[in-house]
Amino acid sequence: MSQVTIDSNEVDIVIAAFHSDLTSFMEEWRPIFSRFHLIIVEDPDLKEELKIPKGFDFDVYTKSDIDKLAGSSNAAMFSGYSCRYFGYLVSKRKYIISIDDDCSPAKDNNGDLVDIVTQHITNLRTPATPFFFNTLYDPYRKGADFVRGYPFGLRSGVTCVLSCGLWLNLADYDAPTQSLKPELRNSRYVDAVLTVPKNTLMPMSGINLAFDREMVGPALLPALKLAKEGKFRWETIEDIWCGLVVKAVCDHLDLGVKTGLPYVSRNERGSAIDSLKKEWEGVKLMEELVPFFQSLKLSPEAVTAESCVTEIAAAVKKGLGRSHTELANVADSMVAWLKIWKEVRSRV
Amino acid sequence: MSQVTIDSNEVDIVIAAFHSDLTSFMEEWRPIFSRFHLIIVEDPDLKEELKIPKGFDFDVYTKSDIDKLAGSSNAAMFSGYSCRYFGYLVSKRKYIISIDDDCSPAKDNNGDLVDIVTQHITNLRTPATPFFFNTLYDPYRKGADFVRGYPFGLRSGVTCVLSCGLWLNLADYDAPTQSLKPELRNSRYVDAVLTVPKNTLMPMSGINLAFDREMVGPALLPALKLAKEGKFRWETIEDIWCGLVVKAVCDHLDLGVKTGLPYVSRNERGSAIDSLKKEWEGVKLMEELVPFFQSLKLSPEAVTAESCVTEIAAAVKKGLGRSHTELANVADSMVAWLKIWKEVRSRV
Repeated sequence: MSQVTIDSNEVDIVIAAFHSDLTSFMEEWRPIFSRFHLIIVEDPDLKEELKIPKGFDFDVYTKSDIDKLAGSSNAAMFSGYSCRYFGYLVSKRKYIISIDDDCSPAKDNNGDLVDIVTQHITNLRTPATPFFFNTLYDPYRKGADFVRGYPFGLRSGVTCVLSCGLWLNLADYDAPTQSLKPELRNSRYVDAVLTVPKNTLMPMSGINLAFDREMVGPALLPALKLAKEGKFRWETIEDIWCGLVVKAVCDHLDLGVKTGLPYVSRNERGSAIDSLKKEWEGVKLMEELVPFFQSLKLSPEAVTAESCVTEIAAAVKKGLGRSHTELANVADSMVAWLKIWKEVRSRV
Repeated sequence: MSQVTIDSNEVDIVIAAFHSDLTSFMEEWRPIFSRFHLIIVEDPDLKEELKIPKGFDFDVYTKSDIDKLAGSSNAAMFSGYSCRYFGYLVSKRKYIISIDDDCSPAKDNNGDLVDIVTQHITNLRTPATPFFFNTLYDPYRKGADFVRGYPFGLRSGVTCVLSCGLWLNLADYDAPTQSLKPELRNSRYVDAVLTVPKNTLMPMSGINLAFDREMVGPALLPALKLAKEGKFRWETIEDIWCGLVVKAVCDHLDLGVKTGLPYVSRNERGSAIDSLKKEWEGVKLMEELVPFFQSLKLSPEAVTAESCVTEIAAAVKKGLGRSHTELANVADSMVAWLKIWKEVRSRV
C-alpha cells in the first residue's frame, strides 16, 4: 500500500465488548493497537466487569455512561451490537476504526500480519473515484494507476470518508446462508481496494470498518433494531441500515466509499440453525429498503452529513413508516441520535 | 472458479494480427487455444502473408475479405486495431473471446497458467449482479456467497454478456501515463471477478475481452478512430468508445458486465514518448464523452442491442456531432456497422 504517516492522535479504535474477558482478543491485536487510543464500549446487557490486559491506552464506557449521556429513554438505542455507536458519539478524533470482538488479525498472501489501522487510514487518506470505474482497482496504490480511457478530469478523485474491510474464515453471511452452508468459509484473500461507485448501494458491515468522523460521523448511527435480533451478527442489520444511510449521504455530498482490504479473521461462534427459527425479519425488510434508498433524492440544501440524515429520516417516516411501524421508529431513532450528537458536540 | 463445461462449438477466438509472424504467439497459447476455432483477422495495412503454425483450427481474413464483405467505402472502419471487429462480424458462434497479439498467457498466484477461455466463459455463463454491490466479489464463485444484507430478490442476478479481463506486466495505460512512468508495470494478480454496477461506466479494453455475440454483438462495434492514432494501444480509444456504447446498452437492457479475472501478460512494445508528440485527442475527447454517456437515456422501445445502438448513434449525432466533426463521423460509422451486421446476418 502507499505509505501514510499516521498521527496516533487522529485515530480512535472503537471496540464493542460482548464478552467480559477481552484478554485474548487484545493480546492478539497488541502489535497493531498498542500505540492507539481505544474506546471500549461494554454491551449494556453484559453485567460482568471487563477484563482488559495492561499496556493499552483506553477508556471504558458502560451502561451507566450511556444512561447519563444519552438519557435512559434513549439507552436502548445502544444495546447489543449497537453499543459501538456510543463509542462513535464520545470520540473526539478525526478517524474511527471499529471492530467486533470476535475478530483476530488476518494474514496476507505472504503470511504477514495485516495491519488494519494502516490500511484503513490509507484508504481514507487517499482519494476515492466514485464517478468512473477503474478496472485496475485503486489507482493510488503503489504500482497502480488509472487505465487508458479514464477521464483525466476525474483522476484527482474525491475525499474518501468510509473504508469497509472484509473477513477471512467465517465471512459475514446472514442466518439462512450460514445455516444452509455451515461449512462455508472464506479463504480467498483478494489483494485489492476499490471505490464503490456513486449511486451503487452495498451491504456495509460493522465488523471491520473505518470512517472519517469529522466528515460523516452523524451518519454512522444506530437506528434499526429488529424485534427478535439476538447476539449473533447474522441476526442483525443495524449496520446494513447504517450503510444505506451513509452511502446515500456520501453519494449526495460527492464523498467516497471504499471496500476491500484490510481483512480480519473472524472466529467461530454459535450455531446459525437456532437463528433460523426466528423470523427472517431483516431479510424481508431489505427487499423494501433497497428500492427506497435507490430512489431517494436529497435536496441541494442538504450540504452536511447532519442535514442529509435529517432529510433521510423525514423521507423514511413518510415513505416507509406508514406500512412498517418499526421503520417509523427507525426514523425517530435517527432524529434522536442527531439530537444527542449535537448535544455532545456542544459540550466540547 | 466454478466449473463450467465448455462446448467448443460455442466459442470463437478472434485474433487481430498486427505482426505477420504469429508463430511464437500461437505456440504460447497452444495449450489453451488448440481445441477452439480461431478467427484471425490481418490488419489490412499489413502487407505480408501471415505465418501461422500447424495444429490449429482457424480461418484467416485479409483486406480483400473486408473489402468484399463490408464494401471498400467501409473498409477503413476495419483498419489497425479495429480489424478485430471484422472477426466479430463473421463469427457465427455464441461467445467471442478477443485478444491482442502482444499478449502471452499469465500465471496465477500459484504459478499455474491462466486459462482465459475457461475463465471468460465462466464469467459469461454465471449471472452478474449489477443492482447491488457484493463486497465479497463474485457470489457465484466456489467458496463465495452473498454477504449479509444482500437482498434475496436480487440474488438470482442477470445474464452476463461482457467479461473484461486484465493485464499483468505492461498494463493498459494511456500514452501520458506510460511516458511519465516508463517503469510502471503491473505485477499484482488480484484474484477476483466483479460486476460493474448498473449506471457505472468503465474503460473497456479490447486487449483481453469476451462477450455474448448473440446478445450484444451489434454493440461491439468499430466507430471511433482518432485522426492521428498509430499502431500502439496507448494511442487508440476505439475500444473505450465501444465500451461506453455496450455498457449503455447493457444498463438499458438489464444485462451484466464483469471485470477482473482472467489476466493476460502483455509484452514490451515501442516507446510511449513518441506517442506523446502526437495530439492527445483521445484524452481530450473522454472529458466530453463520459458526461454524455452518463446522461444518456434510451427509450423503452429499444429492446435489442441493435435498436439501442441505433438510438445511441442518433443521440451522438445530435448531442456531440455538432461540436465535433469526428463524432458526427462516429455516429455514421455506427449506422454503417449496423447495416453491415444485418446484411451479414441475413445471408446466414
